[in-house]
Amino acid sequence: MDPTLDVVGVGNAIVDVIATVDEEFITEHSLAKGAMTLIDSDRATSLYDSMPPGIEASGGSAANTMAGVASLGGVAAYIGKVRADQLGEVFAHDLRAAGVGFDVAPSPSGDPTARCLIQVTPDAERTMNTFLGISAVLAPEDIDEALVASAAITYCEGYLYDTDVAKAAIRRAMDVASEAGRTVSMTLSDSFCVDRHRREWLDLFSDKVDLVFANESEITSLFETDDFDAAARKITDLVPMAAITRSAKGSVVVTPDDTIVVPASVVEQLVDATGAGDLYASGFLHGIATGASLQRCAEMGSIAAGEIISHIGARPHVSLSSLV
Amino acid sequence: MDPTLDVVGVGNAIVDVIATVDEEFITEHSLAKGAMTLIDSDRATSLYDSMPPGIEASGGSAANTMAGVASLGGVAAYIGKVRADQLGEVFAHDLRAAGVGFDVAPSPSGDPTARCLIQVTPDAERTMNTFLGISAVLAPEDIDEALVASAAITYCEGYLYDTDVAKAAIRRAMDVASEAGRTVSMTLSDSFCVDRHRREWLDLFSDKVDLVFANESEITSLFETDDFDAAARKITDLVPMAAITRSAKGSVVVTPDDTIVVPASVVEQLVDATGAGDLYASGFLHGIATGASLQRCAEMGSIAAGEIISHIGARPHVSLSSLV
Repeated sequence: MDPTLDVVGVGNAIVDVIATVDEEFITEHSLAKGAMTLIDSDRATSLYDSMPPGIEASGGSAANTMAGVASLGGVAAYIGKVRADQLGEVFAHDLRAAGVGFDVAPSPSGDPTARCLIQVTPDAERTMNTFLGISAVLAPEDIDEALVASAAITYCEGYLYDTDVAKAAIRRAMDVASEAGRTVSMTLSDSFCVDRHRREWLDLFSDKVDLVFANESEITSLFETDDFDAAARKITDLVPMAAITRSAKGSVVVTPDDTIVVPASVVEQLVDATGAGDLYASGFLHGIATGASLQRCAEMGSIAAGEIISHIGARPHVSLSSLV
Repeated sequence: MDPTLDVVGVGNAIVDVIATVDEEFITEHSLAKGAMTLIDSDRATSLYDSMPPGIEASGGSAANTMAGVASLGGVAAYIGKVRADQLGEVFAHDLRAAGVGFDVAPSPSGDPTARCLIQVTPDAERTMNTFLGISAVLAPEDIDEALVASAAITYCEGYLYDTDVAKAAIRRAMDVASEAGRTVSMTLSDSFCVDRHRREWLDLFSDKVDLVFANESEITSLFETDDFDAAARKITDLVPMAAITRSAKGSVVVTPDDTIVVPASVVEQLVDATGAGDLYASGFLHGIATGASLQRCAEMGSIAAGEIISHIGARPHVSLSSLV
């Protein structure tokens, strides 16, 4: 059966709390600049107490990617877990209002909806501190198998790969997609994630994944090397295709036979790097779903990423379809 | 005893949900463009469902004003009611992080924290739809009398003047301030508010208020006239001083003996009018608290308002003290 959906994303459903801070704030609170650090409820409270006034905006890596796919004109859906609370309502509203299908019922009990405390420094780098809350317990039974089977591509988030139950949910989604003859993709998400799960991920990729997304530090961390080119070659031993972003240096698409280098978009004002990788994936996935060349897939990724880093927040402010 | 606080604000504690929409959205949903409309929980749900993705940012008219006073270097506190829920936490965090004292305990029960669904149109006008939630039941016993007595100025919000209990809270605050020999000020907030409460307000002002804030449509509505100059003269029969904003035409300060006209600040890009009046009041109140001339008070109001309308949201993005 032909797919009726372009992409379904599976990830941590998160509301971002974004504040601009100076470099001293990062040092003073011993934050891992540019990375995503998991924090517990107590740490979330104390870090939030020390943060300047902020704004709240829906986030979550794969959810941002799906919002980008929809903004590009693709048909997207999302699977992730929120609590029946105010931030859960905000998350669901914003995703649906962005045109993404989202039908996972909010949980009536358990931890609150996840939030990510994001500090944006004057260099536009973002430092993320995530309290996963209920998002961490997305379970295999939350995976709508018919939905996954109906999507040309299933896109899973490395960030979600944390609890045993969420790992099982990811595997379930991948298996359902494979059995339906669909494309399975996954993003490495963060170099600390890679470091925590390297062994399991190397097996997971070679067993179940067709397309890997990574940035430079993630792909080199995966193969424990400083040599980018070597890492980019090695990933093609595991998966048929990988799209690797290199910030201002653009991106590289590798297959067993080919290496395609695409420059980054020119951005007038770099404001907030949050969501750059997520939106690159939007453009690339939309390209794959619409049968574009790999060169064009990467170009659309660059354009979508360029829009997102020109403003605060990780969801598009304009229709991306008008940009590509 | 000398005041230890410059200003205490009393108002509806609200979190704003802000989305940019086109003019058609306003027409289609029969919204009162540029005004503040009170909505119930059902209407809030259905309107939110139809809104595009948004961001959440702490708001509330008097709370915005207090954040502005603190940003100008003044000592400010706030009295308003939130529920012990996620939006209540956000409101309290943002206000305290802005340097404003806020010690009203969140209510463990009752309606949720207030939210205001704000649509910003391409002309930068804001249309507000407020679900008052628990903020509407701020009660006389929530008024910290020692706090109010310690403030040089008490600033009350016309928006809060809605339920009987909130009306009593405003009167309590005004009485405490008067008895302590302090200045009592109030903003008319919105022309529909004026229309609902005209009779009561005319008495309230002449009995208890020293300084009134208004915009052009509010002051003319108060006296049911189209003649701005006549309305501006009439208010001085009731109160010793009024500061009246006229959008791009700047502001006018009237006393029984004097009329001072001050131009608006030049703003490079008008983005979102939300908070313009609130921040004008910040600058003016800070001027009064620091013994500035009325001319200078109005100028500081214009500068603070100019900053706020140059970006989305009703709280300052930069230190206002660096601008004045």
